[in-house]
Amino acid sequence: MMATALAGLPEKVSIYEVGPRDGLQNEKAVVPAGVKAEFVTRLADAGLRTIETTSFVHPKWVPQLADAEELLSVLPRSPELRYPVLVPNERGLERALANGVTEIAIFGSATETFARRNLNRTVDESIAMFAPVVDRALAEGLWVRAYVSMVCGDPWEGDVPVEQVVSVASRMMDLGCSQLSLGDTIGVGTPGRVTALIEALGATGVGTERLAVHFHDTYGQALANTLAALRAGVTVVDASAGGLGGCPFAESATGNLPTEDLVWMLDGLGIDTGVDLAKLVATSRWMAGHLGRPSPSRVVQALSPGSETS
Amino acid sequence: MMATALAGLPEKVSIYEVGPRDGLQNEKAVVPAGVKAEFVTRLADAGLRTIETTSFVHPKWVPQLADAEELLSVLPRSPELRYPVLVPNERGLERALANGVTEIAIFGSATETFARRNLNRTVDESIAMFAPVVDRALAEGLWVRAYVSMVCGDPWEGDVPVEQVVSVASRMMDLGCSQLSLGDTIGVGTPGRVTALIEALGATGVGTERLAVHFHDTYGQALANTLAALRAGVTVVDASAGGLGGCPFAESATGNLPTEDLVWMLDGLGIDTGVDLAKLVATSRWMAGHLGRPSPSRVVQALSPGSETS
Repeated sequence: MMATALAGLPEKVSIYEVGPRDGLQNEKAVVPAGVKAEFVTRLADAGLRTIETTSFVHPKWVPQLADAEELLSVLPRSPELRYPVLVPNERGLERALANGVTEIAIFGSATETFARRNLNRTVDESIAMFAPVVDRALAEGLWVRAYVSMVCGDPWEGDVPVEQVVSVASRMMDLGCSQLSLGDTIGVGTPGRVTALIEALGATGVGTERLAVHFHDTYGQALANTLAALRAGVTVVDASAGGLGGCPFAESATGNLPTEDLVWMLDGLGIDTGVDLAKLVATSRWMAGHLGRPSPSRVVQALSPGSETS
Repeated sequence: MMATALAGLPEKVSIYEVGPRDGLQNEKAVVPAGVKAEFVTRLADAGLRTIETTSFVHPKWVPQLADAEELLSVLPRSPELRYPVLVPNERGLERALANGVTEIAIFGSATETFARRNLNRTVDESIAMFAPVVDRALAEGLWVRAYVSMVCGDPWEGDVPVEQVVSVASRMMDLGCSQLSLGDTIGVGTPGRVTALIEALGATGVGTERLAVHFHDTYGQALANTLAALRAGVTVVDASAGGLGGCPFAESATGNLPTEDLVWMLDGLGIDTGVDLAKLVATSRWMAGHLGRPSPSRVVQALSPGSETS
């Protein structure tokens, strides 16, 4: 297809690839470190430049990522490749620093219920927990991303007001984080809400140059929401190769926005991502083979041989 | 979720439901007329007001719709319900008129290759075939919709230039049709192309008040393209309950934009459709049971009991 631009969109979008961490942490079966390393290597070869590779969460909570040290020790390195790592607390930061990590992410919640369930803390307590982590990280010269989850809705609290998200997000950014990733963790948001949230953050001083969006396709809204976010000025988009992970639903349901579906749209819009779609699709098909089930990405399905049987 | 509007979008959208025709014509197994009648009845009860129910194509080509007369004879009728029927030629129009049909649709192609494969004619010949159908239909007081397919890309010709689509579409509208449905039959289009096409049609006199869009989710682009079309001024959107049909791909691939995924977005945007989403989801789950496989609609999957097992 010839690309056709759309007025009001950025010329370039940076994809923040979350498949190895956000995707694989939700796999029942633990993927061997060697397979993960090949996955990250192939993603980098496909042109992805920022790949969240793992998490220094305690292995008791996420055994799928217990091999963080091993994985980081074998990844290909180059000045243009960034491998942010999720860090839940000071102990995690110690491990990250001991392993030469230069970019970290912290993971907060816009709602009290999810903060308690995911972090076993109130929102206030979680921010208090993050403060020394970010302080120390900044002192060590690290780049810090803040995730805020449940930014549109929450399974227990329902609708999450924009003001509540802005309040939590602003406090996390005030810690000194460089980037804020807005996570519609359960995928219920729609383009108006996304736009309102981005505009409200801008009005409080968190401009689009510091924003990323993280959409889940649980209700099919991820790409439409991405389009709205791009139009609102966002230029960093989280996505997961092959649509891996992110959603505790059945095999037929989906989680993270598949990187391939995002790249298809951006390619069609003539927006530069640096990603080679064919290599990316091949990588996701290879990983789907390891996981033993087809990718939920529409693009991966459409471009896979044998999909044309009716 | 509370609705949040987005500037520049319409207040109201009319959904043109294509599941009973475009969906079921692609089913291998023939669905009994009684089941189809219940399907249409339930769709109407869910608030859909325009439902393309069947086609008067020769049963040799589409045996799935051979029961057109029987189906039309048993459908519930009310002044607010519209049941357009696809009519391929004059013989089909005769059957439609004999069965009291008041709204018809004709189905053309923007490309020569698909015109030959689908209609066994050149584009010129197909328009010549439609002319007497539309003339007669208008003389009988019927409302006529024109579908143009392959408006973004074609499996054989690749990219389909905007000017080519505008040329074919204008000629079909010049026959006297009231509405033009732009079909991205293979789902390759992206929001820039969709917007450019709508603007180019407007520049030649086919304004958005006469347009509908018909997107396929084969590459995951359908809802993002819909958002772009709404922003360009379109207020009629084709969709298929449960995402039925429309794509000759494997079970995991998808075809038409699922009506549920569309309604989720429009509900979230505060755009009135008149559709009761819960009733619609229940209808699609019921039909999925008849067809023996899960709906590809993300919303149907997410809202179905039992989907929360991991």
